[in-house]
Amino acid sequence: MAKEKTFRPKARRPRGFEDRAAHVIRAERALVSAASAVYERWGFEPLETPAFEYADALGKFLPDEDRPNEGVFAMQDDDGQWMALRYDLTAPLARFAAEGFQNLVKPYRRYQFGEVWRNEKPGPGRFRQFVQCDADNVGASGPAADAEMIALAAEVMRAAGLNDSDFVIRVNDRRLLDGVLESLGSADDTRRMRVLRAIDKLDRLGMEGVELLLGKGRKDESGDFTEGAGLDEAGRARVLGFLEASKAGGTRAEVTARLAGSAGETAARAGVEALEEINAILTALGIPEELAVFDPSVVRGLGYYTGPVFETELLATPTYPDGSPMQFGSVASGGRYDDLVARFTGQQVPATGFSFGVSRFAAALSALGRLEGADAAPLVIVVAADKARMADYFAMAAELRSAGLRAEAFTGNGNMGKQLKYADRRDAAFAVICGEEEFASGTVQIKDLKLGAQLAESITDRDEWKEQKQQFSVPRSELVSAILTRLSARG
Amino acid sequence: MAKEKTFRPKARRPRGFEDRAAHVIRAERALVSAASAVYERWGFEPLETPAFEYADALGKFLPDEDRPNEGVFAMQDDDGQWMALRYDLTAPLARFAAEGFQNLVKPYRRYQFGEVWRNEKPGPGRFRQFVQCDADNVGASGPAADAEMIALAAEVMRAAGLNDSDFVIRVNDRRLLDGVLESLGSADDTRRMRVLRAIDKLDRLGMEGVELLLGKGRKDESGDFTEGAGLDEAGRARVLGFLEASKAGGTRAEVTARLAGSAGETAARAGVEALEEINAILTALGIPEELAVFDPSVVRGLGYYTGPVFETELLATPTYPDGSPMQFGSVASGGRYDDLVARFTGQQVPATGFSFGVSRFAAALSALGRLEGADAAPLVIVVAADKARMADYFAMAAELRSAGLRAEAFTGNGNMGKQLKYADRRDAAFAVICGEEEFASGTVQIKDLKLGAQLAESITDRDEWKEQKQQFSVPRSELVSAILTRLSARG
Repeated sequence: MAKEKTFRPKARRPRGFEDRAAHVIRAERALVSAASAVYERWGFEPLETPAFEYADALGKFLPDEDRPNEGVFAMQDDDGQWMALRYDLTAPLARFAAEGFQNLVKPYRRYQFGEVWRNEKPGPGRFRQFVQCDADNVGASGPAADAEMIALAAEVMRAAGLNDSDFVIRVNDRRLLDGVLESLGSADDTRRMRVLRAIDKLDRLGMEGVELLLGKGRKDESGDFTEGAGLDEAGRARVLGFLEASKAGGTRAEVTARLAGSAGETAARAGVEALEEINAILTALGIPEELAVFDPSVVRGLGYYTGPVFETELLATPTYPDGSPMQFGSVASGGRYDDLVARFTGQQVPATGFSFGVSRFAAALSALGRLEGADAAPLVIVVAADKARMADYFAMAAELRSAGLRAEAFTGNGNMGKQLKYADRRDAAFAVICGEEEFASGTVQIKDLKLGAQLAESITDRDEWKEQKQQFSVPRSELVSAILTRLSARG
Repeated sequence: MAKEKTFRPKARRPRGFEDRAAHVIRAERALVSAASAVYERWGFEPLETPAFEYADALGKFLPDEDRPNEGVFAMQDDDGQWMALRYDLTAPLARFAAEGFQNLVKPYRRYQFGEVWRNEKPGPGRFRQFVQCDADNVGASGPAADAEMIALAAEVMRAAGLNDSDFVIRVNDRRLLDGVLESLGSADDTRRMRVLRAIDKLDRLGMEGVELLLGKGRKDESGDFTEGAGLDEAGRARVLGFLEASKAGGTRAEVTARLAGSAGETAARAGVEALEEINAILTALGIPEELAVFDPSVVRGLGYYTGPVFETELLATPTYPDGSPMQFGSVASGGRYDDLVARFTGQQVPATGFSFGVSRFAAALSALGRLEGADAAPLVIVVAADKARMADYFAMAAELRSAGLRAEAFTGNGNMGKQLKYADRRDAAFAVICGEEEFASGTVQIKDLKLGAQLAESITDRDEWKEQKQQFSVPRSELVSAILTRLSARG
């Protein structure tokens, strides 16, 4: 076959995509597994939809409504219909729920892990394919379903290995601000979105920047002008006062009591009542005040949220190997969006849910050393010292595996030096060497590949470690026990 | 937003793709998890490549060389390069290995689970996206690496819950037949492929059909003519004699001894030696003779195999829910292919590996009831009898979860009847009911939703079961223990 032609493509990964290495995959798996166990316990059902959806089904549910449809990878099927790779997991859920709506057991609570694809300009650390995890409840209109999402998010964070001091969940209800806008007589959609976007920039721009965006608009450092919401001075003062008040803090009950006082009969009333019920449920579930706080300045950027919203902030700061901090906005966020399937069926269906980026979160957890089960078992390489003895080496590796270790007989080519270098590069803990001499005397040589690093780490225990040799001989029958003893001494 | 326009796309899944339901996902996960644990123990590293590869990189490594490039989903990137969704996991491995060849720790042993996409006409049970699992060893030329793949396949089958009597692995070496062809003076590539394809059809066409394909060719029932390999009568007799001899069976050592006698100094000699070493290793690993047999009639359809090949046959017959048998060819198969990266670099690199279809295999295992861990824990629904008491219902569900059950407070709308119907449709084991009366008396009602089915199953134990009521009351403090007691009595 190789003779047919000699065209040689260059071996190259497509731009903006990544090959995931073993340690990254193990971290993501540990996270996916921990989070799945939480969703399962709570009675959520797993769902997997295909990578493709018809492009028309994706249109409305892009998570950022500023993003055009060009952001997806699309192609035409042979019957002429345009398909596109999913951009998030919400649009496929909407299609799935709408398609089988009559037979769907409601409320339909599902979780889904899956790759999503974004046809964007690749940049450093920005990939065009990554893994997301979404949990949603379709068909439940009450705040209990929102409380459930918040509690789930907290339990996922804990299952991922975070302590309660590592994160905080900020909760709000969009209708509180709607009440403020209503009281100003300015509840039209465009203005509402501009006000929401202005508030969403509070962290970045401060009160002054937000006031500009609430009013005529703001010119940024580059000279670009963002048109404002056009509120008059009284209106701006009302919104800023609302934000200011949200900084007062306090327990969840204190915040709702304060909000109840000012809500009057506006739209905000429903928002306050939702927060009251959410508080009751979070309290019944033992979720501490510090872990889930009510913060009326949280708006979440997305236009489609209609009720309770929340975001999870990582308080621990993971760092890259070079020591620089990883920048994280919200780790997991979500809220209520009550027009999930309406664009397909015209029928209003309540829904609430939340989402997190698996790849990013797993990277942060790895950097913090918090993910349990992400480390592989110690690896032992049985050196192929004598190619005529491969069957014996395979038997040794099998014994080591039975003891819970990772183990392999070296299957490649190369002398002892090359094989030991291989063991080093594989980050193996031990190499086992058994040549003619050892076979004759019924022994094996064990080389402890981590002893050096171990010595450097535990200088105080120097005397103890000094006793241990890097390479030592044991009877063949003690191969496994000798290695396990070394490992357990190491703790 | 809903006002903008009233275009309503039809909610429909793209043709040829499937939404995977919870029980299917759980079965696939159990299989993936069991198989991953095996690969990890053997020191294989996980790898995840992106869904896309450049189309030119996919060309050569389609698993069936009759299939044209049109079989892939391709699209042009904005820099004009054609990308395509991967068709299998071998082509991405080839690209990955070639791209980083200098720095690759060799032998590079990796496993990968992943979706693959085929742009084919959809048909019943034929999907355009499914999950495969591949394990490969790049850089090891010796038969030890092939033996490792066979042992791995056996261990994966066992880890998936199969007994040794449920499957058999048939092993051969392609060079045995090459020896026969060489001795006929007819070793050119086209003839070799035709002979291999003819033999691959032995099961379906019998000796007579194969003889036609070895000679002038064969017309099938539909009248289509397949051109033959053009061997003369002596040549055909030689090949058929070889096949006939392969039916003689015997232990692995008996088969190699027989083959050694006839191999002479042809290419077959290397094949016999490989099988001898493979036998030594399989025997050292305690792999029974019945589990891995040497069968020289196994050729595997793919042209690119160059040495040892094997396929795994399921002996147990899974059935569809309607009782009809699931048709399975080989469950897991593979072999040596020594031109993995040559098309990129021109450099010959030895490689061996095997692959199985996760979705199909998981379906078979589910049907056989063999997959451990594929069943979800029993589900308890806490009925929302009084919406003002949601916090209490959430607390009950949390207690049940702590005991290892799946549990949820009902978050939807509807009266008691609707909620119990929901519990039924969710296949819940219990419903917990606690209204005003129960709160007042400090009790809960438990409804045993599986008792009826349980009664029907165990008619002999009728008296015992009769004692149990379908709905009963317990003190609130005994909610969890009462349910656990029922479950453990049920075994």
